[in-house]
Amino acid sequence: MAKPFMDEDFLLETPTARMLYHDHAAPQPILDYHCHLPPADIAENKQFRNITEVWLGGDHYKWRFMRSSGVTEDFITGDQPDQAKFRRFCEVLPLAVGNPLYHWCHLELRRFFGIDALVNAGNADGLWEACNAKLKQPEFFARGLMLRANVRAVCTTDDPVDDLANHAAIAADKSFPIKVLPTFRPDRAFNIDRAEFIGYIPKLADASGVRIACFADLLKALDARMDHFARHGCRLSDHGVDVTFFAEATEAELDAILARRLGGERLTPREVEQHKTAVLLHLGREYAKRDWAMQLHLGAQRNNNTRMFERLGPDTGWDSISDSLVAAHLARTLDALDREDSLPRTILYCLNPTQNEVLGTMIGNFQDGQVMGKMQFGSGWWFNDQKDGMIRQMTALANLGNLGAFVGMLTDSRSFLSYTRHEYFRRILCNLIGGWVENGEYPQDWPQLQRVVEGICYGNANRYFGLGTS
Amino acid sequence: MAKPFMDEDFLLETPTARMLYHDHAAPQPILDYHCHLPPADIAENKQFRNITEVWLGGDHYKWRFMRSSGVTEDFITGDQPDQAKFRRFCEVLPLAVGNPLYHWCHLELRRFFGIDALVNAGNADGLWEACNAKLKQPEFFARGLMLRANVRAVCTTDDPVDDLANHAAIAADKSFPIKVLPTFRPDRAFNIDRAEFIGYIPKLADASGVRIACFADLLKALDARMDHFARHGCRLSDHGVDVTFFAEATEAELDAILARRLGGERLTPREVEQHKTAVLLHLGREYAKRDWAMQLHLGAQRNNNTRMFERLGPDTGWDSISDSLVAAHLARTLDALDREDSLPRTILYCLNPTQNEVLGTMIGNFQDGQVMGKMQFGSGWWFNDQKDGMIRQMTALANLGNLGAFVGMLTDSRSFLSYTRHEYFRRILCNLIGGWVENGEYPQDWPQLQRVVEGICYGNANRYFGLGTS
Amino acid sequence: MAKPFMDEDFLLETPTARMLYHDHAAPQPILDYHCHLPPADIAENKQFRNITEVWLGGDHYKWRFMRSSGVTEDFITGDQPDQAKFRRFCEVLPLAVGNPLYHWCHLELRRFFGIDALVNAGNADGLWEACNAKLKQPEFFARGLMLRANVRAVCTTDDPVDDLANHAAIAADKSFPIKVLPTFRPDRAFNIDRAEFIGYIPKLADASGVRIACFADLLKALDARMDHFARHGCRLSDHGVDVTFFAEATEAELDAILARRLGGERLTPREVEQHKTAVLLHLGREYAKRDWAMQLHLGAQRNNNTRMFERLGPDTGWDSISDSLVAAHLARTLDALDREDSLPRTILYCLNPTQNEVLGTMIGNFQDGQVMGKMQFGSGWWFNDQKDGMIRQMTALANLGNLGAFVGMLTDSRSFLSYTRHEYFRRILCNLIGGWVENGEYPQDWPQLQRVVEGICYGNANRYFGLGTS
Repeated sequence: MAKPFMDEDFLLETPTARMLYHDHAAPQPILDYHCHLPPADIAENKQFRNITEVWLGGDHYKWRFMRSSGVTEDFITGDQPDQAKFRRFCEVLPLAVGNPLYHWCHLELRRFFGIDALVNAGNADGLWEACNAKLKQPEFFARGLMLRANVRAVCTTDDPVDDLANHAAIAADKSFPIKVLPTFRPDRAFNIDRAEFIGYIPKLADASGVRIACFADLLKALDARMDHFARHGCRLSDHGVDVTFFAEATEAELDAILARRLGGERLTPREVEQHKTAVLLHLGREYAKRDWAMQLHLGAQRNNNTRMFERLGPDTGWDSISDSLVAAHLARTLDALDREDSLPRTILYCLNPTQNEVLGTMIGNFQDGQVMGKMQFGSGWWFNDQKDGMIRQMTALANLGNLGAFVGMLTDSRSFLSYTRHEYFRRILCNLIGGWVENGEYPQDWPQLQRVVEGICYGNANRYFGLGTS
Repeated sequence: MAKPFMDEDFLLETPTARMLYHDHAAPQPILDYHCHLPPADIAENKQFRNITEVWLGGDHYKWRFMRSSGVTEDFITGDQPDQAKFRRFCEVLPLAVGNPLYHWCHLELRRFFGIDALVNAGNADGLWEACNAKLKQPEFFARGLMLRANVRAVCTTDDPVDDLANHAAIAADKSFPIKVLPTFRPDRAFNIDRAEFIGYIPKLADASGVRIACFADLLKALDARMDHFARHGCRLSDHGVDVTFFAEATEAELDAILARRLGGERLTPREVEQHKTAVLLHLGREYAKRDWAMQLHLGAQRNNNTRMFERLGPDTGWDSISDSLVAAHLARTLDALDREDSLPRTILYCLNPTQNEVLGTMIGNFQDGQVMGKMQFGSGWWFNDQKDGMIRQMTALANLGNLGAFVGMLTDSRSFLSYTRHEYFRRILCNLIGGWVENGEYPQDWPQLQRVVEGICYGNANRYFGLGTS
Repeated sequence: MAKPFMDEDFLLETPTARMLYHDHAAPQPILDYHCHLPPADIAENKQFRNITEVWLGGDHYKWRFMRSSGVTEDFITGDQPDQAKFRRFCEVLPLAVGNPLYHWCHLELRRFFGIDALVNAGNADGLWEACNAKLKQPEFFARGLMLRANVRAVCTTDDPVDDLANHAAIAADKSFPIKVLPTFRPDRAFNIDRAEFIGYIPKLADASGVRIACFADLLKALDARMDHFARHGCRLSDHGVDVTFFAEATEAELDAILARRLGGERLTPREVEQHKTAVLLHLGREYAKRDWAMQLHLGAQRNNNTRMFERLGPDTGWDSISDSLVAAHLARTLDALDREDSLPRTILYCLNPTQNEVLGTMIGNFQDGQVMGKMQFGSGWWFNDQKDGMIRQMTALANLGNLGAFVGMLTDSRSFLSYTRHEYFRRILCNLIGGWVENGEYPQDWPQLQRVVEGICYGNANRYFGLGTS
């Protein structure tokens, strides 16, 4: 007998998996330590005008899927009415057999909206009405969605120049119990090759109160901003490292590189690498000093479509998976910090899942035994944030590293409806471990199973990040 | 209870899979949009002298397997008698546990010959007699095999200098209902680094009636041949891109590169890339203009064994999977065409299955919503044309792209018996999707399942290629 | 009903798998053709002082796991008492869900010690007492462990300068029936870039009696040592090729490179490659002449952690998986030997499992039909020596090459307790093939199944290596 679609035992194929999930994973609160929620939306407790805004607004996963289904841009990012866009989306979603979008959408309808209809052309107008009616209620505003998902803390992703006023406002509001902490993401100070770098430096100078005349000034400015972030409870940093690098340089070289770039010149690839290396090593040391965790997101190939980048800007669905090599440079970067005893707790994420084994063994090179799971191989990221991607990441981590020390899932999402991805992850985790138990590969040793599953769902991250949650 | 070997539910593990296959996939006709059948064999309705000719002749998959089993070359491509070669093949095939050859051979025996004996040493002489007797009947001649497989159209692979006389002859024969269309494969005009290039250019000049004195002439000659191919119903091109490239050049540089090469000089790697880039971009534009689909086959490492290449030539079993990088160059090539609004419908195939995720996301960078599935990640190619290879390709496509928009299977084969590979593919497809349904990962929504499965088996390709089939 | 943990049908999921394993795989003797056992330990029939020495001594797999679990170095390689180290290990092992360590440890306890308790904090002291009591008995000394595992021959891994006195002593002891043969591993003569090279050459000169003044002398010295190894029954060589290379050079260039290096200079990357290429090609020819098999272990990235390398030296748990490219160079190396008809039987191992498909097809390029499975794609190595790694390696080999010709498993281990890894491998092999049979993908043709399974477990290696076992 086929299982019904997405019932309470969705993705749980064995009795052990079901017990692990329902008794141990599901009750854990959510600690979403990496996301892209706009803090302003939380501060103002945003209300959404309709299901198109909350579902299709800013969601490049869905946009890509619509484009691949033959939906034209006017129904995606263009000026067609919201309901027409929603209809087109409903019409093509059934093509998404085996795609996480199909699961995400239906999970969100079920868990947040209490609707178990299928998304398709025939149901589009009914869904439009039903969802929009619910979105008018306060429990569907930004904070209501977070509270209903049993979220205990989220870490947003913030530029060093951000004043973090929204974080301060949220923290000051004692009626809202969820911690909303900033994450230090200094990509714009780091990507000296990008066009925006030149204009960014004055902003960083302004925000930090540091005049940036040489490389040391740039670091001083970043330090000042880290202090600012720390005052708002920051415990993590994040870096988008599309291509790894490692190139040493003298202080004088770094000064010259910075000066020439600020003068509008183009740099050689090696100079770019020298700048990035020096910034990253400095920041790594500072993170270690401040006891922050460092996240490195490796291997995106961004903005591949020039025509559409010029029209829509970044993060609109034109990125893909890189195959550039990572192992040699990454080891040298981590080693450089480790030699100075300045390697912070670090999470390595790869976008190319064929690098799972590289990262799954790389972390072992720098485990120092001071912290359980000091070096982490991060959860399936972006395109890998789906069933097979998660299974591959966790299987690699289990085979090559230490699954029991894993800090688990994060949404990486811009949407307030994405907390169901924690449920999705937990089901897959419990099914994986449950399957091993059922197959005689791990004993039915429930205290140990509980230690592992509850740890991965919440306890490990809670201990690792020290966000002040309990 | 173990399933019997290769029964009617071969590879179909669930009731949903069986229903999808028997009711929806199996009845679809075959549109074999990429193959290497010799058009002359169809034109003349070739009769095969024995099972060795039709099974072992030109089949480098089987040759490689025999060599790996300790069969010496005289029994493979050498001068041993046909029956002795067949005996050796039967003797070693049982070692092919988990190899697609084992399935292909037995499927062909069952479907075309109606024989369900196992291939092994003991059965060799019986099979020899039984198969050879059948091969004397007209339904075992080239056209008979195609008709019995329910083929509606095939696209052969043809050099630009080909006069396509065989295609014309087949088209003129109204008694044969299957469309046999040419595919434009200009590798020899493209691979300026190969020894054969110098001798090829005069042939291209002859065929096109264009004197080739500069780079623009070369393009003109190719244009003339595209016109010729178009007159014979061509709708697709094909390129073997062993290593990706992207290097821009001026017209003057391209002229100089061509002149020097035709003068017998060796070019630098960069010059070779400049020539290839310019040819490919020109052709891409032309394909877009003509509304042809462009196929890029990426990542073969060919002719690795010099000794045997010198003895037997190319395509005799000495090729393997490359690990050269593809993502950066490929994106730049596609982007260059897209910026000019000249990117044709494109199918990307990788020989290295670890590039599945790169291609599965690369296509999303250039979906423009004008055509459903404009950019395709092609079916498991060559070494990946087997159960695991197909599952990996379709799972990656489903996870990362749009499985419902997939144009599906092609044989890529030189053999008239290979149509059973469509059956093999369809069983694997239905088992994959059926498994998801049975596991509650997709609903039992039969209209949508039918839309997806029938589309992948036939409808999507029929719409995508516009071969004039219905 | 969940299967009990690690019962007699551990990892055997179908009746066919169980029959294949119990009736055909399990009874085969062990031919461990690649290991790192210290020959002295066999010669002196070493007795182990306690379970910490035999289990945690020198085992960098376990060390890495402990570090990743938050165990500090003093409890790993430091000066804490043996029992305290053992307790810490028992405490963290339950975190190793899905890690081969969990299986290896429990298999070793069950098969060698007859103990089926779980390893955890609560059982630590009981295990300590029980294991240590057993280790006092002669059947737990080095030779006893080997004899009880039904080992017929082992090939150790030895430096060319080794006098092989221990091998001679073992061979001379007629009371010990297991063959212990040396393997020629000339990495130190090969890695001209390493610091130790300069000091190594005088040792090689001493051992060989050849004064090494030029490159030809170096080869002469190696030849002399190969002769010495041959006199002690050597049949295999082994090379750690962390990064592939192929760069030709003249004799004069090679002399200059060697002279400059021995003079203490640093070489360019190209010079290093030239030296390595010339040494490897010479050795390959010699192996072919001597009818030795050549093993190439590709793709380790070693000694990533400088701080710990300086403290503990190599092989202490700071290595990981490289992603450097292999296909192009490797093909050229093998082709260079093949062109001279000097390519020995060769086994290619990759540490990065994403290269499975490259190697699985590379071997096909050089199968010459003279020896069944002349070119081998070696068993899952090091980090891949676990269930998923083995399944991936064998599936790739089956799909792309010839599983029936596979020479199968080796321990690659420094421990006398590792023979249970052959059991582990055989269970996985039988489950894989058994699953195909149960699913109707291979017939229940027991003579052929027996041919394949017994071949992979013992017969193929026995024939391939010619160690004089029967």
